[in-house]
Amino acid sequence: MTEPTAPVWIAGAWRAAQASGSFHAEDPSTGTPLPTPYPVSTRADVIAALEAGSQAAEALEHAAPAAIASFLEGFAAAIEARRDQLVDLAHRETGLPLAPRLRDVELPRTTDQLRQAAAAARSGVWRRPTIDRARGIVSAYAPLGGPVVVMGPNNFPFAFNSVAGGDAAAALAAHNPVIAKANTAHPGTTRLLAELADGALAVAGLPAATIQLLYRVPRDLGLELVAHPLVGATGFTGGRPAGLELKAAADRAGKPIYLEMSSVNPVVLLPGALRERGAAIAAEFYGSCTLGAGQFCTNPGVVIVPAGADGDAFIDAAVAHFSQNPPGVLLGRSGRDGLVSAVATLQQHGATLRCGGAPLDGPGYRFANTLLVVRGASFLAAAHALQTEAFGPVALIVQSDDVDQTVAIIRRFEGNLTGTIYLAGDGSDDAGYARVEPPLRRRVGRLLNNRMPTGVAVSPAMNHGGPFPATGHPGFTAVGMPASIGRFAALHCYDNVPATRLPWWLHDDLPQA
Amino acid sequence: MTEPTAPVWIAGAWRAAQASGSFHAEDPSTGTPLPTPYPVSTRADVIAALEAGSQAAEALEHAAPAAIASFLEGFAAAIEARRDQLVDLAHRETGLPLAPRLRDVELPRTTDQLRQAAAAARSGVWRRPTIDRARGIVSAYAPLGGPVVVMGPNNFPFAFNSVAGGDAAAALAAHNPVIAKANTAHPGTTRLLAELADGALAVAGLPAATIQLLYRVPRDLGLELVAHPLVGATGFTGGRPAGLELKAAADRAGKPIYLEMSSVNPVVLLPGALRERGAAIAAEFYGSCTLGAGQFCTNPGVVIVPAGADGDAFIDAAVAHFSQNPPGVLLGRSGRDGLVSAVATLQQHGATLRCGGAPLDGPGYRFANTLLVVRGASFLAAAHALQTEAFGPVALIVQSDDVDQTVAIIRRFEGNLTGTIYLAGDGSDDAGYARVEPPLRRRVGRLLNNRMPTGVAVSPAMNHGGPFPATGHPGFTAVGMPASIGRFAALHCYDNVPATRLPWWLHDDLPQA
Repeated sequence: MTEPTAPVWIAGAWRAAQASGSFHAEDPSTGTPLPTPYPVSTRADVIAALEAGSQAAEALEHAAPAAIASFLEGFAAAIEARRDQLVDLAHRETGLPLAPRLRDVELPRTTDQLRQAAAAARSGVWRRPTIDRARGIVSAYAPLGGPVVVMGPNNFPFAFNSVAGGDAAAALAAHNPVIAKANTAHPGTTRLLAELADGALAVAGLPAATIQLLYRVPRDLGLELVAHPLVGATGFTGGRPAGLELKAAADRAGKPIYLEMSSVNPVVLLPGALRERGAAIAAEFYGSCTLGAGQFCTNPGVVIVPAGADGDAFIDAAVAHFSQNPPGVLLGRSGRDGLVSAVATLQQHGATLRCGGAPLDGPGYRFANTLLVVRGASFLAAAHALQTEAFGPVALIVQSDDVDQTVAIIRRFEGNLTGTIYLAGDGSDDAGYARVEPPLRRRVGRLLNNRMPTGVAVSPAMNHGGPFPATGHPGFTAVGMPASIGRFAALHCYDNVPATRLPWWLHDDLPQA
Repeated sequence: MTEPTAPVWIAGAWRAAQASGSFHAEDPSTGTPLPTPYPVSTRADVIAALEAGSQAAEALEHAAPAAIASFLEGFAAAIEARRDQLVDLAHRETGLPLAPRLRDVELPRTTDQLRQAAAAARSGVWRRPTIDRARGIVSAYAPLGGPVVVMGPNNFPFAFNSVAGGDAAAALAAHNPVIAKANTAHPGTTRLLAELADGALAVAGLPAATIQLLYRVPRDLGLELVAHPLVGATGFTGGRPAGLELKAAADRAGKPIYLEMSSVNPVVLLPGALRERGAAIAAEFYGSCTLGAGQFCTNPGVVIVPAGADGDAFIDAAVAHFSQNPPGVLLGRSGRDGLVSAVATLQQHGATLRCGGAPLDGPGYRFANTLLVVRGASFLAAAHALQTEAFGPVALIVQSDDVDQTVAIIRRFEGNLTGTIYLAGDGSDDAGYARVEPPLRRRVGRLLNNRMPTGVAVSPAMNHGGPFPATGHPGFTAVGMPASIGRFAALHCYDNVPATRLPWWLHDDLPQA
């Protein structure tokens, strides 16, 4: 007899899944399964969610912006009211520290995003209307006409959550319903967030299927989902293999899909910076690379240092930090296994282990803080393999002979979310910066100076995006309202349509083109 | 011995192609080959163009906006100065009327677009900077870092030309170089335009490889080109089979590709409009559907009329127009053959021929003005096949039993560039409009009232785009500055970068976010 699993949330009802199986989340700090079983949905659930989502899309298209804003704000308030329970649950499912991480950083970030989405929904700033009165043509962005599938990652149970995170908030701000596919590492957190959303939807008077929740679907069904004719678009944050499979399926069907996949976030340390403050930079690097047990999309995974004494001193200082401090708990078993595999790949391609390199014993999932080193020439000989992402407290330090070699290395980099240059304050690195910046700039979404890349500010000026394969398109960002909303909007033009038949968002007296 | 072919334009030099063969354009009004042979390039040409284009991309990134604007304006002036020669050549290669079409409509449209691109390049409006001073983060759009491949269609030898048309102008406005792949129907026109561009580039002091020109590449090489690591993006306008192949190749490589493929541009005639002015609408429909021998992306190819007396009268009036007037010359042999095939497909799936239906005898390529009719129920039974695009003076009229059936028909429509509703002025169609508009709106980029869809105004409010498979993404337009420029730009964020190291386009005192 199958044990009863948690209900899915489809068409406004919390009901038993049409399930083909079940799974449990684990407490990664102990490696033991958590008590609640969650369903693996069959096609019946997916189609039911798509059909209800499609109807909700039609209703939401003309919903009052105030209603959507009020829902998003009510949702944020509900999250705050249940903060302790949410934080406790997320901590058990992810192993991330209760505080400050979950309670004081990620949860406020999440409610902040929801409120920024509410403000954008209320103002309609994302519609970007263009009016050509002389020719009788007007255009503006509108919702996609179908639900947005959101597949959130394991490493941000709140801020990138499939129900409450940035993609969901952006999709909802543009009047699109959301079909959330929970990350299987934290189904309970996602379920509780969905329950809070449910209450806030009812208060705001929005359609019941404005948000729906599934926990898991078999691989083929996931590919069918993102390519389904009723879908508006997909937002995916996660690993590259799954991301590329979903992208191929959505692309074939002509369905937009926004992916945030993998990134090693190269950091270039110029010689003057190391001379000036090498020890301080080593400490900053350690802090950034091991924050959240290194499980950030913007984790600095490749660092280029000058070969020679200052570079060696930096490496020694970094090794001391990495080896003297215990690593945090990883998000799960697959993360640990992925690190074993990634570190092996790096070593097979010429990188030398300086510290760490193996999982820790014990009941939970931990991987030693790890540094590897490789000469610039060796990096160039195996540039692709040496950009293997190690999603954890692991970095590869590349020893570059000179600025020419640094430029050659950068020219082999894939697309990344971020690229960072540390340089001296006395001008001694300015010439090197001028050589290094242009090729790095073209390969990253966000270029930093003298600051580690972790810490993605929720700012309208943020770009949490970058060239493929960091994401699927270099023109879009996953963080930063209102820009991130633009991913989930279609351009609608009206030609010779009198004002009385224009939608209300083009009724106001708008500036002329 | 191989005859000498026209030179390709690579890295600033007009030189013999590394060719694997040659081809001739035809005069479609006589079906005879034109004298000049053009080369089919091999991989050596393609790689040479990519490498030169990649270097030009680096140079153009920091080119002065005034230089780019001055080039675009100089190019427009050069086109005007050589108007008669251009128009004559295009007429011979395409069969399109010298005047008013080529001389008085399309050529001025083309120079207008180039000047609008110049204005956008000069103002930098496409960069859309966002400044967050408090957090020290700024972002703006920047060029893609690689050349933009432009593959223009056969039906607009000037306005969508690979060298001088809208895609090229938009790519250049955002400081990207262009690799033009000429449409093989008008290689001479494209070559002459490229020669004029060459002169204007030299005057403006831009890199020689800012624009490059190939005439034809084998299929596999085209797929390699759009997916090549050095490419920034591709703009393609043409048929669906080729478009989908190119899309798949570019998608796999994570390279942006913007496609304008196929569209039947449904027109819904509501009963009151037919009662009120059915004969006038029939004349408008005839004019729009046969303009340019029907070879417009926005040609009205499917018309829904009410079954019954008014609908029958409209059909009779339309048939009279279509059958009493001679068709124009088609763009070429493949267009004629495509029409034979498309009309056969429509007939095989239940459509009845009312007039036309076959090519005309004679030396040139002509296809009789053609109307087919099908009952709504039959349309619903074969909705996919009955949306086969017939690229010429051909339309399918669907007789709908009532508004319910009209809505059901619309719900089966694929994505289209345009959708049109004709309604009465006395309010008698308002209820029908309210039923029909929402499902149509979601399936088209531009919604029109009481105006046929041909005639795409070059307006900032224009959307010449729409849901797949009309294009590859519902958020972008191929016509209308500055929006069309956004296709060829990457979002670049700077985090903690002092003003002295920001690019010049972020130096000015910009408004805060």
